Amino acid sequence: MIQRLAVIGVGLIGGSFALALRRAKAVGSVVGSGRSAATLQEARRLGIIDEIAEGPAEAAAGADFIMIATPVGQIEAILRAVRPQLAGGAVVTDGGSTKSDLVRAARDALRDRIGQFVPGHPIAGAEKSGAGAALAGLYDGRRVVLTPLPENDPAAVARVELAWRTCGAVVARMTPQEHDRVLAAVSHLPHVLAYALVEQIVTDPRAEVLWAHAAGGFRDFTRIASSHPEMWRDICIANREALLQEIDRYAGQLRQLRDLIDAGDAAGLEHQFQRSREARDAWLQRLASGA
Amino acid sequence: MIQRLAVIGVGLIGGSFALALRRAKAVGSVVGSGRSAATLQEARRLGIIDEIAEGPAEAAAGADFIMIATPVGQIEAILRAVRPQLAGGAVVTDGGSTKSDLVRAARDALRDRIGQFVPGHPIAGAEKSGAGAALAGLYDGRRVVLTPLPENDPAAVARVELAWRTCGAVVARMTPQEHDRVLAAVSHLPHVLAYALVEQIVTDPRAEVLWAHAAGGFRDFTRIASSHPEMWRDICIANREALLQEIDRYAGQLRQLRDLIDAGDAAGLEHQFQRSREARDAWLQRLASGA
Repeated sequence: MIQRLAVIGVGLIGGSFALALRRAKAVGSVVGSGRSAATLQEARRLGIIDEIAEGPAEAAAGADFIMIATPVGQIEAILRAVRPQLAGGAVVTDGGSTKSDLVRAARDALRDRIGQFVPGHPIAGAEKSGAGAALAGLYDGRRVVLTPLPENDPAAVARVELAWRTCGAVVARMTPQEHDRVLAAVSHLPHVLAYALVEQIVTDPRAEVLWAHAAGGFRDFTRIASSHPEMWRDICIANREALLQEIDRYAGQLRQLRDLIDAGDAAGLEHQFQRSREARDAWLQRLASGA
Repeated sequence: MIQRLAVIGVGLIGGSFALALRRAKAVGSVVGSGRSAATLQEARRLGIIDEIAEGPAEAAAGADFIMIATPVGQIEAILRAVRPQLAGGAVVTDGGSTKSDLVRAARDALRDRIGQFVPGHPIAGAEKSGAGAALAGLYDGRRVVLTPLPENDPAAVARVELAWRTCGAVVARMTPQEHDRVLAAVSHLPHVLAYALVEQIVTDPRAEVLWAHAAGGFRDFTRIASSHPEMWRDICIANREALLQEIDRYAGQLRQLRDLIDAGDAAGLEHQFQRSREARDAWLQRLASGA
Protein backbone atom coordinates (compact mmCIF):
# COMPACT_ATOMS: atom_id res chain seq x y z
CA MET A 1 0.00 0.00 0.00
CA ILE A 2 1.28 3.42 -1.03
CA GLN A 3 0.26 6.28 1.29
CA ARG A 4 1.16 9.18 -0.90
CA LEU A 5 2.20 8.73 -4.51
CA ALA A 6 4.01 11.49 -6.36
CA VAL A 7 3.77 11.30 -10.15
CA ILE A 8 6.22 13.60 -11.87
CA GLY A 9 5.14 13.87 -15.49
CA VAL A 10 1.45 12.99 -15.67
CA GLY A 11 1.22 11.67 -19.22
CA LEU A 12 0.32 8.29 -20.66
CA ILE A 13 2.84 6.34 -18.55
CA GLY A 14 2.59 8.21 -15.23
CA GLY A 15 -1.13 8.76 -15.50
CA SER A 16 -1.84 5.11 -16.26
CA PHE A 17 0.37 4.06 -13.33
CA ALA A 18 -1.73 6.20 -10.96
CA LEU A 19 -5.01 5.00 -12.45
CA ALA A 20 -3.98 1.34 -12.21
CA LEU A 21 -3.01 1.70 -8.53
CA ARG A 22 -6.27 3.53 -7.83
CA ARG A 23 -8.20 0.75 -9.56
CA ALA A 24 -6.55 -1.72 -7.15
CA LYS A 25 -7.21 0.61 -4.20
CA ALA A 26 -3.48 0.41 -3.51
CA VAL A 27 -2.82 4.13 -3.10
CA GLY A 28 -3.97 6.78 -0.60
CA SER A 29 -3.48 10.10 -2.33
CA VAL A 30 -1.77 11.12 -5.56
CA VAL A 31 0.08 14.37 -6.15
CA GLY A 32 1.26 15.33 -9.61
CA SER A 33 3.72 17.76 -11.09
CA GLY A 34 4.73 18.55 -14.63
CA ARG A 35 5.64 21.21 -17.12
CA SER A 36 2.19 21.88 -18.49
CA ALA A 37 -0.41 23.43 -16.19
CA ALA A 38 -3.15 22.46 -18.64
CA THR A 39 -2.15 18.78 -18.54
CA LEU A 40 -2.08 18.80 -14.74
CA GLN A 41 -5.53 20.36 -14.57
CA GLU A 42 -6.82 17.80 -17.03
CA ALA A 43 -5.25 15.03 -14.92
CA ARG A 44 -7.01 16.33 -11.81
CA ARG A 45 -10.29 16.66 -13.67
CA LEU A 46 -9.95 13.06 -14.89
CA GLY A 47 -9.31 11.81 -11.34
CA ILE A 48 -5.76 10.73 -12.09
CA ILE A 49 -4.24 12.97 -9.41
CA ASP A 50 -5.74 14.61 -6.30
CA GLU A 51 -3.36 17.54 -6.02
CA ILE A 52 -1.09 19.61 -8.20
CA ALA A 53 2.36 20.41 -6.82
CA GLU A 54 4.46 23.43 -7.78
CA GLY A 55 7.32 21.28 -9.00
CA PRO A 56 9.11 17.97 -8.50
CA ALA A 57 10.54 18.92 -5.09
CA GLU A 58 7.11 19.91 -3.75
CA ALA A 59 5.57 16.74 -5.17
CA ALA A 60 8.22 14.56 -3.53
CA ALA A 61 7.86 16.16 -0.09
CA GLY A 62 5.88 13.75 2.07
CA ALA A 63 5.56 11.09 -0.64
CA ASP A 64 6.52 7.49 0.13
CA PHE A 65 6.56 6.47 -3.56
CA ILE A 66 7.78 8.67 -6.40
CA MET A 67 7.24 7.81 -10.07
CA ILE A 68 9.16 9.90 -12.57
CA ALA A 69 7.49 9.49 -15.93
CA THR A 70 9.00 12.18 -18.11
CA PRO A 71 11.15 11.95 -21.25
CA VAL A 72 14.48 10.47 -20.12
CA GLY A 73 16.37 13.70 -20.80
CA GLN A 74 14.60 15.39 -17.87
CA ILE A 75 15.06 12.74 -15.20
CA GLU A 76 18.49 13.78 -13.92
CA ALA A 77 17.38 17.33 -13.16
CA ILE A 78 14.26 16.00 -11.46
CA LEU A 79 16.29 13.66 -9.26
CA ARG A 80 18.47 16.60 -8.21
CA ALA A 81 15.39 18.61 -7.31
CA VAL A 82 13.77 15.72 -5.47
CA ARG A 83 16.80 14.63 -3.40
CA PRO A 84 16.56 17.19 -0.55
CA GLN A 85 12.88 16.28 -0.02
CA LEU A 86 13.34 12.53 -0.06
CA ALA A 87 11.95 10.84 3.07
CA GLY A 88 14.13 8.04 4.50
CA GLY A 89 11.68 5.26 3.66
CA ALA A 90 10.60 6.58 0.27
CA VAL A 91 11.38 4.83 -2.99
CA VAL A 92 11.86 6.50 -6.34
CA THR A 93 11.37 4.77 -9.67
CA ASP A 94 10.99 5.91 -13.24
CA GLY A 95 9.45 4.90 -16.54
CA GLY A 96 12.33 5.93 -18.79
CA SER A 97 13.00 3.95 -21.93
CA THR A 98 16.78 3.79 -21.47
CA LYS A 99 18.71 2.76 -18.41
CA SER A 100 22.55 2.76 -18.53
CA ASP A 101 22.85 6.45 -19.19
CA LEU A 102 20.17 7.21 -16.64
CA VAL A 103 21.84 5.16 -13.91
CA ARG A 104 25.07 7.13 -14.38
CA ALA A 105 23.14 10.39 -14.15
CA ALA A 106 21.13 9.20 -11.14
CA ARG A 107 24.30 8.29 -9.18
CA ASP A 108 25.51 11.83 -9.78
CA ALA A 109 22.22 13.40 -8.84
CA LEU A 110 21.28 11.32 -5.78
CA ARG A 111 24.78 10.49 -4.40
CA ASP A 112 24.27 8.80 -0.98
CA ARG A 113 20.52 8.38 -1.65
CA ILE A 114 21.04 6.32 -4.82
CA GLY A 115 19.91 3.18 -2.92
CA GLN A 116 16.37 4.59 -2.88
CA PHE A 117 16.19 4.71 -6.68
CA VAL A 118 14.99 1.54 -8.45
CA PRO A 119 15.12 2.14 -12.22
CA GLY A 120 12.28 0.70 -14.26
CA HIS A 121 10.76 0.64 -17.72
CA PRO A 122 7.20 -0.37 -18.58
CA ILE A 123 7.16 -1.69 -22.15
CA ALA A 124 3.78 -0.28 -22.96
CA GLY A 125 4.34 2.76 -25.08
CA ALA A 126 1.88 3.95 -27.61
CA GLU A 127 2.04 6.68 -30.18
CA LYS A 128 -0.54 8.50 -28.07
CA SER A 129 0.67 10.70 -25.28
CA GLY A 130 -0.72 12.98 -22.60
CA ALA A 131 -2.88 12.51 -19.52
CA GLY A 132 -5.98 12.19 -21.69
CA ALA A 133 -4.58 8.93 -23.11
CA ALA A 134 -3.97 7.36 -19.66
CA LEU A 135 -5.79 4.10 -18.94
CA ALA A 136 -6.16 2.04 -15.75
CA GLY A 137 -5.67 -1.11 -17.82
CA LEU A 138 -2.64 0.01 -19.84
CA TYR A 139 -0.28 -2.36 -18.01
CA ASP A 140 -2.50 -5.45 -17.83
CA GLY A 141 -0.32 -8.32 -18.97
CA ARG A 142 2.39 -5.94 -20.19
CA ARG A 143 6.04 -6.40 -19.36
CA VAL A 144 7.92 -4.09 -17.02
CA VAL A 145 11.70 -4.35 -16.76
CA LEU A 146 13.37 -3.33 -13.51
CA THR A 147 17.13 -2.81 -13.49
CA PRO A 148 17.94 -2.86 -9.76
CA LEU A 149 21.22 -1.34 -8.57
CA PRO A 150 23.77 -2.97 -6.23
CA GLU A 151 23.02 -0.13 -3.80
CA ASN A 152 19.28 -0.92 -3.61
CA ASP A 153 17.82 -2.35 -0.43
CA PRO A 154 16.01 -5.54 -1.55
CA ALA A 155 12.92 -4.20 0.24
CA ALA A 156 12.92 -1.13 -2.02
CA VAL A 157 13.11 -3.29 -5.14
CA ALA A 158 10.31 -5.46 -3.79
CA ARG A 159 8.09 -2.41 -3.21
CA VAL A 160 8.52 -1.21 -6.77
CA GLU A 161 7.97 -4.69 -8.13
CA LEU A 162 4.80 -5.09 -6.05
CA ALA A 163 3.45 -1.75 -7.30
CA TRP A 164 3.88 -2.86 -10.93
CA ARG A 165 2.34 -6.26 -10.22
CA THR A 166 -0.59 -4.44 -8.66
CA CYS A 167 -0.92 -2.52 -11.94
CA GLY A 168 -1.31 -5.88 -13.71
CA ALA A 169 2.18 -6.00 -15.21
CA VAL A 170 4.61 -8.90 -15.57
CA VAL A 171 7.95 -7.87 -14.04
CA ALA A 172 11.38 -8.93 -15.35
CA ARG A 173 14.79 -7.97 -13.98
CA MET A 174 17.90 -7.19 -16.03
CA THR A 175 21.05 -5.16 -15.76
CA PRO A 176 20.79 -1.66 -17.21
CA GLN A 177 23.17 -2.65 -20.04
CA GLU A 178 21.16 -5.73 -20.92
CA HIS A 179 17.95 -3.70 -20.91
CA ASP A 180 19.40 -1.11 -23.26
CA ARG A 181 20.73 -3.69 -25.67
CA VAL A 182 17.37 -5.51 -25.81
CA LEU A 183 15.32 -2.35 -26.20
CA ALA A 184 17.64 -0.94 -28.85
CA ALA A 185 16.92 -4.03 -30.94
CA VAL A 186 13.16 -4.42 -30.50
CA SER A 187 12.02 -0.84 -29.95
CA HIS A 188 14.52 1.95 -30.57
CA LEU A 189 15.77 0.62 -33.91
CA PRO A 190 12.24 0.13 -35.33
CA HIS A 191 11.37 3.71 -34.36
CA VAL A 192 14.44 5.06 -36.16
CA LEU A 193 13.59 2.93 -39.21
CA ALA A 194 10.02 4.20 -39.31
CA TYR A 195 11.11 7.82 -38.96
CA ALA A 196 13.65 7.33 -41.75
CA LEU A 197 10.98 5.93 -44.08
CA VAL A 198 8.58 8.79 -43.47
CA GLU A 199 11.46 11.22 -43.98
CA GLN A 200 12.16 9.57 -47.31
CA ILE A 201 8.58 10.17 -48.47
CA VAL A 202 8.52 13.72 -47.09
CA THR A 203 11.70 14.69 -48.95
CA ASP A 204 10.66 13.04 -52.23
CA PRO A 205 9.83 15.55 -54.99
CA ARG A 206 6.74 13.46 -55.75
CA ALA A 207 5.59 13.20 -52.14
CA GLU A 208 1.94 13.93 -52.99
CA VAL A 209 1.47 10.99 -55.35
CA LEU A 210 3.38 8.72 -52.96
CA TRP A 211 1.12 9.58 -50.03
CA ALA A 212 -1.93 9.07 -52.26
CA HIS A 213 -0.90 5.46 -52.90
CA ALA A 214 0.29 4.52 -49.43
CA ALA A 215 -2.01 1.91 -47.90
CA GLY A 216 -2.54 -0.21 -44.80
CA GLY A 217 0.89 -1.80 -44.78
CA PHE A 218 2.53 1.60 -44.84
CA ARG A 219 0.22 2.89 -42.13
CA ASP A 220 1.08 0.07 -39.72
CA PHE A 221 4.77 0.14 -40.58
CA THR A 222 5.00 3.84 -39.79
CA ARG A 223 2.63 3.98 -36.81
CA ILE A 224 5.58 4.46 -34.45
CA ALA A 225 6.73 7.46 -36.49
CA SER A 226 3.79 9.28 -34.91
CA SER A 227 5.47 8.87 -31.50
CA HIS A 228 6.47 11.78 -29.29
CA PRO A 229 9.42 13.53 -31.03
CA GLU A 230 11.01 14.87 -27.84
CA MET A 231 10.80 11.51 -26.08
CA TRP A 232 12.40 9.74 -29.02
CA ARG A 233 15.07 12.37 -29.42
CA ASP A 234 16.04 11.72 -25.77
CA ILE A 235 15.94 7.94 -26.18
CA CYS A 236 18.16 8.02 -29.26
CA ILE A 237 20.74 10.12 -27.50
CA ALA A 238 20.57 8.33 -24.14
CA ASN A 239 20.90 4.90 -25.72
CA ARG A 240 23.24 6.03 -28.45
CA GLU A 241 25.81 3.30 -28.03
CA ALA A 242 23.50 0.28 -28.21
CA LEU A 243 21.32 1.93 -30.85
CA LEU A 244 24.23 2.72 -33.17
CA GLN A 245 25.28 -0.93 -32.99
CA GLU A 246 21.78 -2.03 -33.98
CA ILE A 247 21.59 0.53 -36.80
CA ASP A 248 24.92 -0.69 -38.15
CA ARG A 249 23.84 -4.32 -37.97
CA TYR A 250 20.64 -3.33 -39.72
CA ALA A 251 22.48 -1.55 -42.51
CA GLY A 252 24.30 -4.84 -43.05
CA GLN A 253 21.05 -6.84 -43.10
CA LEU A 254 19.58 -4.45 -45.61
CA ARG A 255 22.69 -4.61 -47.78
CA GLN A 256 22.44 -8.39 -47.76
CA LEU A 257 18.80 -8.30 -48.91
CA ARG A 258 19.73 -5.66 -51.47
CA ASP A 259 22.39 -7.97 -52.89
CA LEU A 260 19.93 -10.87 -53.15
CA ILE A 261 17.52 -8.60 -55.03
CA ASP A 262 20.27 -7.20 -57.24
CA ALA A 263 21.41 -10.73 -58.09
CA GLY A 264 17.84 -11.82 -58.81
CA ASP A 265 18.35 -14.62 -56.27
CA ALA A 266 14.76 -15.87 -56.06
CA ALA A 267 15.52 -18.89 -53.89
CA GLY A 268 17.60 -16.85 -51.44
CA LEU A 269 14.89 -14.20 -51.11
CA GLU A 270 12.10 -16.70 -50.65
CA HIS A 271 14.12 -18.61 -48.03
CA GLN A 272 14.71 -15.46 -46.03
CA PHE A 273 11.15 -14.16 -46.33
CA GLN A 274 9.80 -17.57 -45.34
CA ARG A 275 12.06 -17.74 -42.28
CA SER A 276 11.03 -14.23 -41.22
CA ARG A 277 7.35 -15.01 -41.61
CA GLU A 278 7.62 -18.22 -39.61
CA ALA A 279 9.60 -16.59 -36.80
CA ARG A 280 7.18 -13.70 -36.55
CA ASP A 281 4.11 -15.92 -36.66
CA ALA A 282 5.56 -18.17 -33.93
CA TRP A 283 6.14 -15.08 -31.79
CA LEU A 284 2.54 -13.91 -32.32
CA GLN A 285 1.32 -17.32 -31.20
CA ARG A 286 3.41 -17.13 -28.02
CA LEU A 287 2.05 -13.63 -27.40
CA ALA A 288 -1.53 -14.80 -27.89
CA SER A 289 -1.06 -17.75 -25.55
CA GLY A 290 0.46 -15.44 -22.92
CA ALA A 291 3.68 -17.51 -22.81
CA MET B 1 -22.01 -6.88 -66.98
CA ILE B 2 -19.59 -9.78 -67.22
CA GLN B 3 -21.08 -12.98 -68.65
CA ARG B 4 -18.37 -15.39 -67.69
CA LEU B 5 -15.50 -14.39 -65.42
CA ALA B 6 -12.33 -16.47 -65.27
CA VAL B 7 -10.29 -16.02 -62.11
CA ILE B 8 -6.83 -17.51 -62.41
CA GLY B 9 -5.39 -17.70 -58.92
CA VAL B 10 -8.29 -17.73 -56.47
CA GLY B 11 -6.63 -16.20 -53.41
CA LEU B 12 -7.28 -13.01 -51.47
CA ILE B 13 -7.11 -10.71 -54.51
CA GLY B 14 -8.85 -12.87 -57.13
CA GLY B 15 -11.38 -14.27 -54.67
CA SER B 16 -12.34 -10.83 -53.39
CA PHE B 17 -12.70 -9.55 -56.97
CA ALA B 18 -15.19 -12.32 -57.74
CA LEU B 19 -17.09 -11.81 -54.49
CA ALA B 20 -17.33 -8.05 -55.01
CA LEU B 21 -18.72 -8.49 -58.54
CA ARG B 22 -21.18 -11.09 -57.27
CA ARG B 23 -22.26 -8.71 -54.51
CA ALA B 24 -23.07 -6.15 -57.23
CA LYS B 25 -24.80 -8.82 -59.35
CA ALA B 26 -22.42 -7.80 -62.14
CA VAL B 27 -21.27 -11.27 -63.14
CA GLY B 28 -23.01 -14.31 -64.62
CA SER B 29 -20.79 -17.28 -63.82
CA VAL B 30 -17.31 -17.57 -62.37
CA VAL B 31 -14.77 -20.22 -63.28
CA GLY B 32 -11.55 -20.57 -61.31
CA SER B 33 -8.19 -22.20 -61.84
CA GLY B 34 -5.10 -22.39 -59.72
CA ARG B 35 -2.25 -24.55 -58.51
CA SER B 36 -3.90 -25.89 -55.37
CA ALA B 37 -6.89 -28.22 -55.74
CA ALA B 38 -7.71 -27.72 -52.06
CA THR B 39 -7.90 -23.93 -52.48
CA LEU B 40 -10.14 -24.27 -55.52
CA GLN B 41 -12.48 -26.61 -53.68
CA GLU B 42 -12.60 -24.22 -50.75
CA ALA B 43 -13.35 -21.36 -53.16
CA ARG B 44 -16.23 -23.31 -54.67
CA ARG B 45 -17.54 -24.25 -51.24
CA LEU B 46 -17.40 -20.57 -50.19
CA GLY B 47 -19.38 -19.53 -53.29
CA ILE B 48 -16.48 -17.56 -54.77
CA ILE B 49 -16.42 -19.61 -57.98
CA ASP B 50 -19.03 -21.82 -59.65
CA GLU B 51 -16.70 -24.14 -61.54
CA ILE B 52 -13.15 -25.39 -61.35
CA ALA B 53 -11.17 -25.46 -64.61
CA GLU B 54 -8.25 -27.79 -65.34
CA GLY B 55 -5.86 -24.91 -65.94
CA PRO B 56 -5.62 -21.32 -67.20
CA ALA B 57 -6.38 -22.21 -70.81
CA GLU B 58 -9.53 -24.10 -69.87
CA ALA B 59 -10.60 -21.26 -67.56
CA ALA B 60 -10.12 -18.69 -70.29
CA ALA B 61 -12.08 -20.62 -72.92
CA GLY B 62 -15.46 -18.92 -73.26
CA ALA B 63 -14.73 -16.22 -70.69
CA ASP B 64 -15.32 -12.57 -71.59
CA PHE B 65 -13.33 -11.25 -68.64
CA ILE B 66 -10.14 -12.84 -67.30
CA MET B 67 -8.55 -11.80 -64.02
CA ILE B 68 -5.07 -13.17 -63.37
CA ALA B 69 -4.41 -12.86 -59.64
CA THR B 70 -1.30 -14.93 -59.05
CA PRO B 71 2.18 -13.92 -57.84
CA VAL B 72 3.68 -11.78 -60.65
CA GLY B 73 6.29 -14.40 -61.51
CA GLN B 74 3.59 -16.72 -62.90
CA ILE B 75 1.69 -14.25 -65.07
CA GLU B 76 3.78 -14.55 -68.24
CA ALA B 77 3.32 -18.33 -68.44
CA ILE B 78 -0.39 -17.93 -67.80
CA LEU B 79 -0.76 -15.37 -70.59
CA ARG B 80 0.99 -17.79 -72.96
CA ALA B 81 -1.42 -20.54 -71.97
CA VAL B 82 -4.46 -18.28 -72.22
CA ARG B 83 -3.68 -16.71 -75.62
CA PRO B 84 -4.97 -19.48 -77.93
CA GLN B 85 -8.29 -19.54 -76.03
CA LEU B 86 -8.82 -15.80 -75.97
CA ALA B 87 -12.16 -14.76 -77.50
CA GLY B 88 -12.05 -11.68 -79.70
CA GLY B 89 -14.08 -9.49 -77.36
CA ALA B 90 -12.55 -10.74 -74.12
CA VAL B 91 -10.41 -8.56 -71.87
CA VAL B 92 -7.61 -9.79 -69.65
CA THR B 93 -6.38 -7.94 -66.58
CA ASP B 94 -4.22 -8.81 -63.62
CA GLY B 95 -3.65 -7.92 -59.99
CA GLY B 96 0.13 -8.04 -60.03
CA SER B 97 2.07 -5.67 -57.80
CA THR B 98 4.61 -4.66 -60.46
CA LYS B 99 3.98 -3.47 -63.97
CA SER B 100 6.99 -2.54 -66.18
CA ASP B 101 8.50 -5.98 -66.13
CA LEU B 102 5.11 -7.59 -66.60
CA VAL B 103 4.22 -5.44 -69.61
CA ARG B 104 7.44 -6.53 -71.34
CA ALA B 105 6.61 -10.16 -70.62
CA ALA B 106 2.98 -9.74 -71.69
CA ARG B 107 3.98 -8.29 -75.08
CA ASP B 108 6.13 -11.37 -75.63
CA ALA B 109 3.43 -13.76 -74.51
CA LEU B 110 0.38 -12.21 -76.17
CA ARG B 111 1.98 -10.73 -79.32
CA ASP B 112 -0.88 -9.50 -81.61
CA ARG B 113 -3.41 -9.95 -78.76
CA ILE B 114 -1.60 -7.52 -76.41
CA GLY B 115 -4.35 -4.94 -76.97
CA GLN B 116 -6.74 -7.15 -74.98
CA PHE B 117 -4.55 -6.98 -71.86
CA VAL B 118 -5.16 -4.06 -69.50
CA PRO B 119 -2.63 -4.27 -66.64
CA GLY B 120 -3.89 -3.38 -63.17
CA HIS B 121 -2.97 -3.38 -59.52
CA PRO B 122 -5.40 -3.18 -56.60
CA ILE B 123 -3.59 -1.59 -53.65
CA ALA B 124 -5.34 -3.69 -51.08
CA GLY B 125 -2.90 -6.31 -49.95
CA ALA B 126 -2.99 -7.84 -46.55
CA GLU B 127 -0.67 -10.20 -44.81
CA LYS B 128 -3.43 -12.78 -45.07
CA SER B 129 -3.64 -14.87 -48.19
CA GLY B 130 -5.77 -17.64 -49.66
CA ALA B 131 -9.38 -17.96 -50.76
CA GLY B 132 -10.50 -18.20 -47.13
CA ALA B 133 -9.36 -14.59 -46.59
CA ALA B 134 -11.35 -13.22 -49.57
CA LEU B 135 -13.97 -10.58 -48.80
CA ALA B 136 -16.66 -8.95 -50.94
CA GLY B 137 -15.80 -5.60 -49.35
CA LEU B 138 -12.01 -5.77 -49.67
CA TYR B 139 -11.90 -3.08 -52.35
CA ASP B 140 -14.44 -0.65 -50.94
CA GLY B 141 -12.79 2.75 -51.12
CA ARG B 142 -9.42 1.22 -52.00
CA ARG B 143 -7.27 2.45 -54.81
CA VAL B 144 -6.69 0.45 -57.99
CA VAL B 145 -4.05 1.59 -60.45
CA LEU B 146 -4.50 0.73 -64.13
CA THR B 147 -1.54 1.11 -66.47
CA PRO B 148 -3.19 1.03 -69.92
CA LEU B 149 -1.06 0.25 -72.96
CA PRO B 150 -0.92 2.21 -76.22
CA GLU B 151 -2.28 -0.94 -77.91
CA ASN B 152 -5.40 -1.07 -75.72
CA ASP B 153 -8.78 -0.29 -77.25
CA PRO B 154 -10.25 2.46 -75.02
CA ALA B 155 -13.35 0.26 -74.65
CA ALA B 156 -11.26 -2.53 -73.11
CA VAL B 157 -9.75 -0.11 -70.60
CA ALA B 158 -13.21 1.20 -69.81
CA ARG B 159 -14.51 -2.32 -69.15
CA VAL B 160 -11.73 -3.08 -66.68
CA GLU B 161 -12.18 0.28 -65.01
CA LEU B 162 -15.93 -0.27 -64.70
CA ALA B 163 -15.39 -3.71 -63.15
CA TRP B 164 -13.14 -2.23 -60.46
CA ARG B 165 -15.56 0.65 -59.83
CA THR B 166 -18.29 -1.94 -59.45
CA CYS B 167 -16.09 -3.59 -56.78
CA GLY B 168 -16.13 -0.30 -54.87
CA ALA B 169 -12.60 0.78 -55.80
CA VAL B 170 -11.23 4.19 -56.76
CA VAL B 171 -9.37 3.85 -60.07
CA ALA B 172 -6.25 5.82 -61.02
CA ARG B 173 -4.26 5.58 -64.24
CA MET B 174 -0.46 5.75 -64.56
CA THR B 175 2.27 4.53 -66.84
CA PRO B 176 3.79 1.19 -65.82
CA GLN B 177 7.06 2.96 -64.93
CA GLU B 178 5.33 5.53 -62.77
CA HIS B 179 3.38 2.82 -61.02
CA ASP B 180 6.51 0.85 -60.21
CA ARG B 181 8.36 3.85 -58.90
CA VAL B 182 5.45 4.83 -56.61
CA LEU B 183 4.87 1.31 -55.32
CA ALA B 184 8.58 0.73 -54.73
CA ALA B 185 8.55 3.72 -52.39
CA VAL B 186 5.34 3.16 -50.43
CA SER B 187 4.99 -0.62 -50.47
CA HIS B 188 7.93 -2.66 -51.72
CA LEU B 189 10.56 -0.82 -49.71
CA PRO B 190 8.62 -1.05 -46.42
CA HIS B 191 8.23 -4.80 -46.96
CA VAL B 192 11.95 -5.24 -47.48
CA LEU B 193 12.64 -3.13 -44.37
CA ALA B 194 10.28 -5.21 -42.25
CA TYR B 195 11.76 -8.48 -43.47
CA ALA B 196 15.27 -7.18 -42.75
CA LEU B 197 14.30 -6.26 -39.18
CA VAL B 198 12.78 -9.65 -38.44
CA GLU B 199 15.86 -11.28 -39.98
CA GLN B 200 18.02 -9.24 -37.61
CA ILE B 201 16.12 -10.58 -34.59
CA VAL B 202 16.07 -14.15 -35.93
CA THR B 203 19.84 -14.18 -36.45
CA ASP B 204 20.65 -12.56 -33.09
CA PRO B 205 22.28 -14.97 -30.62
CA ARG B 206 19.88 -13.60 -27.99
CA ALA B 207 16.76 -13.93 -30.13
CA GLU B 208 14.68 -15.45 -27.30
CA VAL B 209 15.05 -12.53 -24.92
CA LEU B 210 14.51 -10.07 -27.77
CA TRP B 211 11.23 -11.68 -28.80
CA ALA B 212 10.13 -11.72 -25.16
CA HIS B 213 10.43 -7.93 -24.98
CA ALA B 214 9.02 -7.02 -28.36
CA ALA B 215 5.74 -5.15 -27.97
CA GLY B 216 2.97 -3.49 -29.94
CA GLY B 217 5.21 -1.12 -31.90
CA PHE B 218 7.29 -4.03 -33.11
CA ARG B 219 4.20 -6.03 -33.98
CA ASP B 220 2.74 -3.29 -36.18
CA PHE B 221 6.08 -2.43 -37.74
CA THR B 222 6.67 -6.01 -38.79
CA ARG B 223 3.10 -6.96 -39.77
CA ILE B 224 4.03 -6.89 -43.44
CA ALA B 225 6.85 -9.37 -42.78
CA SER B 226 4.10 -11.97 -42.40
CA SER B 227 3.23 -11.45 -46.07
CA HIS B 228 3.37 -14.20 -48.66
CA PRO B 229 7.07 -15.05 -49.22
CA GLU B 230 6.69 -16.23 -52.81
CA MET B 231 4.67 -13.19 -53.79
CA TRP B 232 7.24 -10.84 -52.29
CA ARG B 233 10.13 -12.72 -53.80
CA ASP B 234 8.52 -12.15 -57.22
CA ILE B 235 7.79 -8.49 -56.55
CA CYS B 236 11.36 -7.78 -55.43
CA ILE B 237 12.75 -9.34 -58.57
CA ALA B 238 10.19 -7.94 -60.99
CA ASN B 239 10.56 -4.40 -59.65
CA ARG B 240 14.26 -4.72 -58.98
CA GLU B 241 15.32 -1.49 -60.64
CA ALA B 242 12.95 0.90 -58.86
CA LEU B 243 13.27 -1.01 -55.59
CA LEU B 244 17.07 -0.88 -55.56
CA GLN B 245 16.89 2.88 -56.03
CA GLU B 246 14.56 3.19 -53.06
CA ILE B 247 16.71 0.90 -50.92
CA ASP B 248 19.77 2.98 -51.75
CA ARG B 249 17.98 6.22 -50.95
CA TYR B 250 16.83 4.65 -47.70
CA ALA B 251 20.34 3.59 -46.74
CA GLY B 252 21.27 7.24 -47.15
CA GLN B 253 18.35 8.42 -44.98
CA LEU B 254 19.31 5.95 -42.30
CA ARG B 255 22.95 7.03 -42.43
CA GLN B 256 21.85 10.61 -41.98
CA LEU B 257 19.78 9.77 -38.89
CA ARG B 258 22.67 7.64 -37.64
CA ASP B 259 24.99 10.64 -37.92
CA LEU B 260 22.59 12.87 -35.99
CA ILE B 261 22.42 10.25 -33.23
CA ASP B 262 26.19 9.74 -33.24
CA ALA B 263 26.73 13.49 -32.97
CA GLY B 264 24.17 13.74 -30.17
CA ASP B 265 22.35 16.38 -32.25
CA ALA B 266 19.21 16.72 -30.15
CA ALA B 267 17.77 19.64 -32.09
CA GLY B 268 18.36 17.94 -35.44
CA LEU B 269 16.71 14.72 -34.30
CA GLU B 270 13.72 16.46 -32.78
CA HIS B 271 13.24 18.56 -35.91
CA GLN B 272 13.23 15.49 -38.12
CA PHE B 273 11.00 13.41 -35.84
CA GLN B 274 8.56 16.31 -35.56
CA ARG B 275 8.42 16.75 -39.32
CA SER B 276 7.83 13.02 -39.83
CA ARG B 277 5.05 12.93 -37.25
CA GLU B 278 3.31 15.96 -38.74
CA ALA B 279 3.51 14.61 -42.29
CA ARG B 280 2.21 11.19 -41.26
CA ASP B 281 -0.60 12.65 -39.15
CA ALA B 282 -1.65 14.93 -42.01
CA TRP B 283 -1.77 11.91 -44.31
CA LEU B 284 -3.90 9.96 -41.81
CA GLN B 285 -6.33 12.88 -41.68
CA ARG B 286 -6.61 12.94 -45.47
CA LEU B 287 -7.18 9.16 -45.43
CA ALA B 288 -9.90 9.49 -42.78
CA SER B 289 -11.64 12.27 -44.69
CA GLY B 290 -11.51 10.19 -47.86
CA ALA B 291 -9.63 12.92 -49.73
